[in-house]
Amino acid sequence: MTIIVLNFKTYRESTGEDALTLSRICEGVAREYGVEIAVAPQTADIGRVAEAVEIPVFAQHVDGVGFGSFTGHTTATSIKEAGAKGSLINHSERRLKLAEIDAAIAACRSCGLKTIVCTNNVATTRAAAALLPDYVAVEPPELIGSGIPVSKADPEVVRGSVEAVKAIEPGVAVLCGAGITHGEDLRAALDLGSAGVLLASGIIKAKDQRLALEDLVTGI
Amino acid sequence: MTIIVLNFKTYRESTGEDALTLSRICEGVAREYGVEIAVAPQTADIGRVAEAVEIPVFAQHVDGVGFGSFTGHTTATSIKEAGAKGSLINHSERRLKLAEIDAAIAACRSCGLKTIVCTNNVATTRAAAALLPDYVAVEPPELIGSGIPVSKADPEVVRGSVEAVKAIEPGVAVLCGAGITHGEDLRAALDLGSAGVLLASGIIKAKDQRLALEDLVTGI
Amino acid sequence: MTIIVLNFKTYRESTGEDALTLSRICEGVAREYGVEIAVAPQTADIGRVAEAVEIPVFAQHVDGVGFGSFTGHTTATSIKEAGAKGSLINHSERRLKLAEIDAAIAACRSCGLKTIVCTNNVATTRAAAALLPDYVAVEPPELIGSGIPVSKADPEVVRGSVEAVKAIEPGVAVLCGAGITHGEDLRAALDLGSAGVLLASGIIKAKDQRLALEDLVTGI
Amino acid sequence: MTIIVLNFKTYRESTGEDALTLSRICEGVAREYGVEIAVAPQTADIGRVAEAVEIPVFAQHVDGVGFGSFTGHTTATSIKEAGAKGSLINHSERRLKLAEIDAAIAACRSCGLKTIVCTNNVATTRAAAALLPDYVAVEPPELIGSGIPVSKADPEVVRGSVEAVKAIEPGVAVLCGAGITHGEDLRAALDLGSAGVLLASGIIKAKDQRLALEDLVTGI
Repeated sequence: MTIIVLNFKTYRESTGEDALTLSRICEGVAREYGVEIAVAPQTADIGRVAEAVEIPVFAQHVDGVGFGSFTGHTTATSIKEAGAKGSLINHSERRLKLAEIDAAIAACRSCGLKTIVCTNNVATTRAAAALLPDYVAVEPPELIGSGIPVSKADPEVVRGSVEAVKAIEPGVAVLCGAGITHGEDLRAALDLGSAGVLLASGIIKAKDQRLALEDLVTGI
Repeated sequence: MTIIVLNFKTYRESTGEDALTLSRICEGVAREYGVEIAVAPQTADIGRVAEAVEIPVFAQHVDGVGFGSFTGHTTATSIKEAGAKGSLINHSERRLKLAEIDAAIAACRSCGLKTIVCTNNVATTRAAAALLPDYVAVEPPELIGSGIPVSKADPEVVRGSVEAVKAIEPGVAVLCGAGITHGEDLRAALDLGSAGVLLASGIIKAKDQRLALEDLVTGI
Repeated sequence: MTIIVLNFKTYRESTGEDALTLSRICEGVAREYGVEIAVAPQTADIGRVAEAVEIPVFAQHVDGVGFGSFTGHTTATSIKEAGAKGSLINHSERRLKLAEIDAAIAACRSCGLKTIVCTNNVATTRAAAALLPDYVAVEPPELIGSGIPVSKADPEVVRGSVEAVKAIEPGVAVLCGAGITHGEDLRAALDLGSAGVLLASGIIKAKDQRLALEDLVTGI
Repeated sequence: MTIIVLNFKTYRESTGEDALTLSRICEGVAREYGVEIAVAPQTADIGRVAEAVEIPVFAQHVDGVGFGSFTGHTTATSIKEAGAKGSLINHSERRLKLAEIDAAIAACRSCGLKTIVCTNNVATTRAAAALLPDYVAVEPPELIGSGIPVSKADPEVVRGSVEAVKAIEPGVAVLCGAGITHGEDLRAALDLGSAGVLLASGIIKAKDQRLALEDLVTGI
């Protein structure tokens, strides 16, 4: 099933109380249109968002450390207990070392959290897929926040990622992101073989977030 | 007033539900003995801990970024809205770049959060104090988790830090940490001029956390 | 052909003038025994080592940045012009982000430098191989500098790495490292399918570096 | 005495052989006009630049680690043995953690290397000065490479830095940088109390590097 993941980033429009409001809008659209929408609020907001809505809540980042003498880290257990169902890992605004990505995937897997590893090109998509996350989300950094959809500006990076992953790990689903805003962008992404999209500003900074989401889901 | 800051780290005994239990113990001891105890749970736990207790809740880490296109960061606003009163910054297990420490202090200051910048020796204590946080907490990394109290093992780093800060920024209070467990360790820290202590395993890993805390506060 | 890569790290015995002496020992043994030995001195020593010996000189680290406004980075071009034939990438003491590893490999490839990407387990070995370096060198971090050879302590990580790479990128050669010192350690590594070894303290800290190297090469 | 520090970054025009050519131009201008010019080439170029010219050679970055099991680090000893007289530390393109800056200064001091710690505003300048380097160089990141001189665009950050350092560590000299190109920019910087300038593209990317340098030194 196609998945739409909305990364709340640290936008004013998706922090604290506003994270709740936006999550409820996502839940409403998901129900009405029968689509799967996951929300990824800031770590401090996971608990109340997860209490307020029934759609899946993802963390924006998780560290591959377990219980112990670690300070300022986000453990898989802590986000799981707060209600998260999964986490983004290695977003272009929070890149991780290779061994950290592997450890974060392992930590999530061991407590039943889904993982979406973000990548920047076909080569890193292949490498990330080799680590066996649930999803890889390819996002050319230069298109993030640009409003120019990756599915139009760089279809080859999506198609190439889908093929590369199919060749080495067909069980890993490929998402794409960067510049996705409208239904036609999502449609194009799916046509290229993507299993869904990761997006942020196109919806969050829209004048009417619900209308923007409704436009988006027409692409499915 | 002397302050005791309990860093929950990512210990099993202080994560999720256990973070609530431990916070209530801290609140109980703080009330009964009339001392100030602040708790620093993981970011995902801040919300429910802050709802459950009235003692100050601190984050373990905060990023100096504001609203915008940032993923996986912990903003001052998000922890403030979740109920935090302040944050540790630059803990030895989560060291930051100099410019990031400055930005994190500024971000906290602008939304009314207290700041405790951790340092490793007299020189970095001086440097951190020059950035005007509320507190600097000096902790020789080799003593963290050792059970050997800094106030006994290295009194000079505490005394030197207190003097160095007094000379350049008398408004900044100096805490110390690493190996602090018992009342006598705290007493020794105060005698060296420290305004309080930062501690973790000595209490959290104790067989009886409440008894351990009660022993500790006899030092005041 | 079996390759032995000697990582000079920042040991006193392999810095500055001593880097020259050690490199000449390596060259002597390589010639006398007809084996391939590459040396990896600190960046500042690459130039004079490369002038002094004819065996391959590798950098210990390279950044994936090109010409431009970058300060304090080690570019592929700069080490190439200094005489290097390749570089270690992502050593356990200098871990890189996934996208940085990819960029570093690309930068080296574009100027004809060989690449050896270090990894810590089978999963990261697979991921690194997917990025198409010349070599992947698997080294369980806990065995580095231990004197306990990976080929004996953890043969499965070597065998598993060799198989994993063969399955997805047979053109990438697998090295192993950590604790390798004697000829029998090297022999065991080769028997597990490794194309060579990466080592450091076993030779560099030996009382007689030449004797230690001669012992090692008996394993081929 | 006024000092001009030319950061070679990783520009094509200042890498490898071109680093030698540019260093000789700097040496020629320094001699002819009786001014002090230091050059900061890439680490791999330090050795041959230091052999070719008699003006001071600085590294662009140094790590605060000593002899031992460290890979891919630039030690103070290695650059010293290659001929460096000092190092930039914490450039905006290579920011370091607070404890790393302190360790790097200590490592340089212990082997007689001069230190220039780069900072981004008055607060971090104060903090850096508290660590007792030889110089602090304040450079607002947004002006680096802009061609808009800090001495004109933001004179307050220079004046404020000079005053702040004078108040807590009068023995530390303050440089400024970002956008400095012409003699009048340098003149303005000196008038604000700066002891010199740190610059890069204004000279390195000039059509005629020697002419650009000659223009610059008219400011002294």
